[in-house]
Amino acid sequence: MSTTQLDSKSYGQYNAKAYSAGSPTSPLAPTIIARRDPGEQDVRLEILFCGICHSDLHQVRNEWSVMPTVYPCIPGHEIIGRVTHVGSAVTKFKPGDIAAVGCLVDSDGSCPECHAGLEQFCPNMILTYNSPDVHLGGMTYGGYSESIVVKEHFVFSVPSNLDLAGAAPLLCAGITTYSPMRHWGVTKGKKVGVVGLGGLGHMAVKFAHALGAHTVVFTTSPNKKDDALSLGAEEVVLSHDADQMNKHASSFDFILDAVSAEHDVNAYVQLLSRDGNITLVGGVDKPHAVSAFGLLLKRRSISGSVIGSIVETQEMLDFCGKHNIAADVEVIPIQKVNEAYERLLKSNVKYRFSIDMKSLKSS
Amino acid sequence: MSTTQLDSKSYGQYNAKAYSAGSPTSPLAPTIIARRDPGEQDVRLEILFCGICHSDLHQVRNEWSVMPTVYPCIPGHEIIGRVTHVGSAVTKFKPGDIAAVGCLVDSDGSCPECHAGLEQFCPNMILTYNSPDVHLGGMTYGGYSESIVVKEHFVFSVPSNLDLAGAAPLLCAGITTYSPMRHWGVTKGKKVGVVGLGGLGHMAVKFAHALGAHTVVFTTSPNKKDDALSLGAEEVVLSHDADQMNKHASSFDFILDAVSAEHDVNAYVQLLSRDGNITLVGGVDKPHAVSAFGLLLKRRSISGSVIGSIVETQEMLDFCGKHNIAADVEVIPIQKVNEAYERLLKSNVKYRFSIDMKSLKSS
Repeated sequence: MSTTQLDSKSYGQYNAKAYSAGSPTSPLAPTIIARRDPGEQDVRLEILFCGICHSDLHQVRNEWSVMPTVYPCIPGHEIIGRVTHVGSAVTKFKPGDIAAVGCLVDSDGSCPECHAGLEQFCPNMILTYNSPDVHLGGMTYGGYSESIVVKEHFVFSVPSNLDLAGAAPLLCAGITTYSPMRHWGVTKGKKVGVVGLGGLGHMAVKFAHALGAHTVVFTTSPNKKDDALSLGAEEVVLSHDADQMNKHASSFDFILDAVSAEHDVNAYVQLLSRDGNITLVGGVDKPHAVSAFGLLLKRRSISGSVIGSIVETQEMLDFCGKHNIAADVEVIPIQKVNEAYERLLKSNVKYRFSIDMKSLKSS
Repeated sequence: MSTTQLDSKSYGQYNAKAYSAGSPTSPLAPTIIARRDPGEQDVRLEILFCGICHSDLHQVRNEWSVMPTVYPCIPGHEIIGRVTHVGSAVTKFKPGDIAAVGCLVDSDGSCPECHAGLEQFCPNMILTYNSPDVHLGGMTYGGYSESIVVKEHFVFSVPSNLDLAGAAPLLCAGITTYSPMRHWGVTKGKKVGVVGLGGLGHMAVKFAHALGAHTVVFTTSPNKKDDALSLGAEEVVLSHDADQMNKHASSFDFILDAVSAEHDVNAYVQLLSRDGNITLVGGVDKPHAVSAFGLLLKRRSISGSVIGSIVETQEMLDFCGKHNIAADVEVIPIQKVNEAYERLLKSNVKYRFSIDMKSLKSS
């Protein structure tokens, strides 16, 4: 298959509309960016939906000391699109297919992590945004954009039964919660906790339930109880109620901590059974205070997890197709993205914003 | 076999010389304690050597908020002795045998942990000292004593080739370091770090080396380098030298952190490879500051471990017999125990004190 003719403005690249931030304090605003023409291994997508991840907000505002932001920053790594062009060596996709792109667009392919099929740990991985762009120079630009060009290996097939707006957040919120559950053996018969019922947490509840675990949601908001139950939780615990917490002492096989604000991790460590694990997926910049005794006395562990591998992300999407799982989303036009960020800070969304990217055509 | 005649001062119990602390600020001093007559499942040992564990000092001075001390406190849980009397149902031991007792003297035998053969996690386990004594009332009394009476299940056989003074610390320092190495899969081909070259750390080096791992010692003391190498380490890293530390970034499969003073755990987390684990065995009361990103980006984990099971402790002693491993000890009379505590606080011992308990006869 030969590369389809591209509407490039100059040889090797073309222009695309996008929304970018120019500084930590600037609102996102319309801009024009360059995308490369697809090479022989590349797939070009017209972006249909892009989820808004809390990471987008952290990165745009340069809130992570370990990953400083280079401006302009075009965020977005929960991308659903329609294939418009494919390179000559592409075999999995053809124009018209619905496909997806997540947090990674490349890795070195040669390190032990890549050989182990764990691209998310490749020391030279290229993130979908705010990583060096080896093709065009500058930094990679994410999904708040008309289109994107990505190496086939990093493009996923999307099960045909999934709602596309709701499928977008699977590419980060989905895999980020699915991967540690698979890694730490969440199955039927296990007792699993989910801390925080936001974008990640609500996906974690759906996955834990679908994997057959007895699922308990921890929340600070009594008014989230009914929602938690309807998402698939068997129990809801108010985390500031010591009596409710104590009833669950030393009883959990696994807890997924999806809170990205400062909080007391020890309170959850105490709820783990012997050999129980709590995995952090929230990028909290300030260190957690962790009691050694909480870990020692029951051989408990605290770990972290970050997205998942390419193979695992496809597995997750297929699992979602089989169980008809997508994120609960509020669909917005790109023009409302700054307002959405403010609402995200107040957890005022059930549970994820998904940008309908056709709105960008009119911006 | 019938119970041997006991020198009990009153029915059901007898008196024994011991050293006890009367308050958090009192020195240890001679006293007389009651021991029970052996029941049919019990073994009575004349104590030959008792190691001095850092836990003894913490407990005597009531420094652990999670385990408050009841006074008088008679510490000691690294006990080597000669069997003098056995109950009628005892099958593994006979008078004259050399045997050992560690940190546990009983557990409920009926909980899931006991059924799993993991008595160290039994919620009703009885510690060798400072636990409720169900036989005589009051609290259990440890090994700074002439003799002890313990249920057979919690008494170990000691390989005949081991030096008895050096074998005593195996019962806590030994199993505490051996158990997590076995649990986290330390074998030939793994790169293993040991933080802190004290009582626990020097045992960890011996075990990691004997298990075939490439063993690296982290220390703040340049003058410990030669000792670390002679104990079996392949490399020694000065932990306050950032360049030396950075050379080992993301390279360790497992690190055993044996430091029981406040220190920066994140510095070692950064040295773990993907899926690497650092296990804390030091009981530091103040919480550790743990960076979430350090865990997230390589799926690393921090865990704790506490002693080991009864089966595993016997396995460890047998491993020590096979590899001729014992602690490096300075043998002292019981009369020097308070001085030894002060030296322990300054890490002024290579690497463990072992009390020659025959000294108690003259006190």
